[in-house]
Amino acid sequence: MRPYLRDPAAIYAESFATVRREARLDRFPEELKPMVIRLIHACGMVEIADRLAISPDVAASGAAALAGGAPVLCDCEMVAAGIIRRALPAGNEVVVTLNDPAVPGLAQAGATTRSAAAVDLWADRLGGAVVAIGNAPTALFRLLELLDEGAPRPAAILGFPVGFVGAAESKAELARDPRGAPFAALKGRRGGSAMASAAVNALAAGLRTEGPVH
Amino acid sequence: MRPYLRDPAAIYAESFATVRREARLDRFPEELKPMVIRLIHACGMVEIADRLAISPDVAASGAAALAGGAPVLCDCEMVAAGIIRRALPAGNEVVVTLNDPAVPGLAQAGATTRSAAAVDLWADRLGGAVVAIGNAPTALFRLLELLDEGAPRPAAILGFPVGFVGAAESKAELARDPRGAPFAALKGRRGGSAMASAAVNALAAGLRTEGPVH
Repeated sequence: MRPYLRDPAAIYAESFATVRREARLDRFPEELKPMVIRLIHACGMVEIADRLAISPDVAASGAAALAGGAPVLCDCEMVAAGIIRRALPAGNEVVVTLNDPAVPGLAQAGATTRSAAAVDLWADRLGGAVVAIGNAPTALFRLLELLDEGAPRPAAILGFPVGFVGAAESKAELARDPRGAPFAALKGRRGGSAMASAAVNALAAGLRTEGPVH
Repeated sequence: MRPYLRDPAAIYAESFATVRREARLDRFPEELKPMVIRLIHACGMVEIADRLAISPDVAASGAAALAGGAPVLCDCEMVAAGIIRRALPAGNEVVVTLNDPAVPGLAQAGATTRSAAAVDLWADRLGGAVVAIGNAPTALFRLLELLDEGAPRPAAILGFPVGFVGAAESKAELARDPRGAPFAALKGRRGGSAMASAAVNALAAGLRTEGPVH
């Protein structure tokens, strides 16, 4: 077997250098580049840079929220597992309500998914929070409904649901009308927990490389 | 906002139907299709079907191992978080050694990554296990080294490391010489925890849709 690169710092450096060399980053302001680079790093696809919908204020707003102790609200355990805890600036709480015992009953009562019902349990923490959705389109749809009903705005909506039913549609709706919230989303079917976690990690750590990636 | 599909069973059905309609599945034997469909479902990209390297025996070998109580060895917490625990047929243990307190010291002593060092801690459980790698190329490289050194063979190697340094190379090496182990891998840079989890879920549940996806 051929030798392979084993030094974590060198792996990170070469990874980020490859992204900078191959991805079209020039349309993004400097303060967004760490998030874009981390998103690409998380999925191995430089071309997603061309499909990101992102508001210029999302990095500043999300980073300030984290520095101020805001919680991170995640739609599933995988997103939470990808967040580099020791990079969070204020020991921020990482919240996943999907497996709350109330959720199956709420989902059934509302004739909806557990992921959507779990979002209802965020209601009293939404204001100023960082929301990271990496799995369920219905979670993002439900979040937008809550905002339409008058729920307080998050500091950042990181919208990366994935798949064939509702993913493209929910993210298009977010990009069309983010309800006044700073946001980032990958248009189309692609997305996933790793991207949602990477977006949170970019808000928390920029391109600093502490953490469990390699 | 337009109405959206909220019924979990309908979402699954439409998702899997879309994959069957759009992906080129005809080159796969029937017993592999559930894994291929779940992999596509996890990432939203039908075209990955054309880039899968997969041994025909991986489904039977992996499913039999799980039925017999084999552990699932994961390279990171995100993979473990994506595994549908209640679908595992024998209450199988899901093992992540990455955050074992011994790992940082082992990594430093071996001048390698924590992910590679964590694989050394699998050694006495490798024989007959299901291995799911969804993040670190160095974990897959290290696994192949251990097999070259005589470690007992896993029942299935699910190889989905992602990224720009070593991901394509480690999966190419697995596909070139799987050391006698049944395997599945996505060639190239793409991969990720969601795919690795999806492959485990396919071994455990086929296309049955219990679980935390929606």
